[in-house]
Amino acid sequence: MIGTLYSIGVGPGDPELITLKALKILKEAPCLCVPKGREEGTSIALEIVSKVFDIKDKEIIEAHFPMKKTKSPEHMESLDKKWNETVENILNRLRKGLDIAFITIGDPSIYSTFYYLYDRLLELQPDLQISIIPGISSINASAAKAGVSLGLADEKIAIIPTTYTDNLKTIFETFDTIVLMKVHKVMDKILSLLDELKLTEKSIYISKVGMKDEYICKDLSKLNKEELNYFSILIVKK
Amino acid sequence: MIGTLYSIGVGPGDPELITLKALKILKEAPCLCVPKGREEGTSIALEIVSKVFDIKDKEIIEAHFPMKKTKSPEHMESLDKKWNETVENILNRLRKGLDIAFITIGDPSIYSTFYYLYDRLLELQPDLQISIIPGISSINASAAKAGVSLGLADEKIAIIPTTYTDNLKTIFETFDTIVLMKVHKVMDKILSLLDELKLTEKSIYISKVGMKDEYICKDLSKLNKEELNYFSILIVKK
Repeated sequence: MIGTLYSIGVGPGDPELITLKALKILKEAPCLCVPKGREEGTSIALEIVSKVFDIKDKEIIEAHFPMKKTKSPEHMESLDKKWNETVENILNRLRKGLDIAFITIGDPSIYSTFYYLYDRLLELQPDLQISIIPGISSINASAAKAGVSLGLADEKIAIIPTTYTDNLKTIFETFDTIVLMKVHKVMDKILSLLDELKLTEKSIYISKVGMKDEYICKDLSKLNKEELNYFSILIVKK
Repeated sequence: MIGTLYSIGVGPGDPELITLKALKILKEAPCLCVPKGREEGTSIALEIVSKVFDIKDKEIIEAHFPMKKTKSPEHMESLDKKWNETVENILNRLRKGLDIAFITIGDPSIYSTFYYLYDRLLELQPDLQISIIPGISSINASAAKAGVSLGLADEKIAIIPTTYTDNLKTIFETFDTIVLMKVHKVMDKILSLLDELKLTEKSIYISKVGMKDEYICKDLSKLNKEELNYFSILIVKK
């Protein structure tokens, strides 16, 4: 009997935002698989989980993901090697009948590296049992903390990773709520655009929601630029 | 001491998708407030909650919401009266120091009637303590069940309640993932548009995710029209 691979969203940081279902599966699975790719996301998922139960009896598999933008061919080769190792480690255990819980911060469907793994594993083992358990995403958690609705009645919501900046003006005009993810790198451009569209006062910046350094700024003119980081979200509600 | 009003997302249907935090607050709060407005959403939130603990000792307040589209002035007047009663019922209990948990299916920030109440209550009692606890939305739960990522890397996600159909073509062209909510009423139009844009094969229909009549259709040519209902989502992933 081949084991089941669970992909489990553990929420954005507050361990109490884990669901009952996630907790049950996490406690039962003998192996936890933890994404390791970007420095920023490394151990946070595991840290969240370890706050709700003792993980000392679990085998931990680190999942290294291939990065799309890499500096050198050697670096790429070494990442590819690690990636293949990850896939093999996972398949080996599943084929022994062990269940694996792949844990991811937030929700597996929202910008989680899990889906790279998903496609690759199904390629190698098409009959694999994969069960995806949704988690609270940082988007929903940020809206809750900021006290804003993302949408009511007929309102349209756009979610944009702001490595992307073309067309942003049209999107702002078409949608009622615009959620900009990982906004830290292009904040100056965004601030100018919001100013131009007279939307500065309709915007809320949230970073590290539910983590210990959570920061919420409802007046962008007072935004502390030291709080700009990878886990940053801007909600613009017209 | 005035009580705290909690707005609690209980997830889309599966009681195990309730978070640890939501469960803790629900067990402690003496009053549960349940939205009652549209026939469809009436008692589902309460049904979900009652599957994880015994609600017999709770006071249940039914929250009637004003409907924007109503058939007659008399109907509107009676709804307004009920709405004022709801607001008064809630404030009375909070002013007695009782905590209230307003429960909503899915997530409070995603098309929940809670925010109508939120604004009105803060108007009447600006110092009110309101705490919003995010829940798993039907969007994230549907993506999980369908095994599709809503976004990876730089992908842009649009969430559209499909009472809205203008501009839909441009949105399909601009975004990588399009989530259409409450798609049941305009399904024929949407099917034509998907066909025109050659996106039929990239679309998945999900209704009543996590409920006992959950229905997932990955081949829209075989869509069972009897399964079209209020709790329907179409995920188009290009």
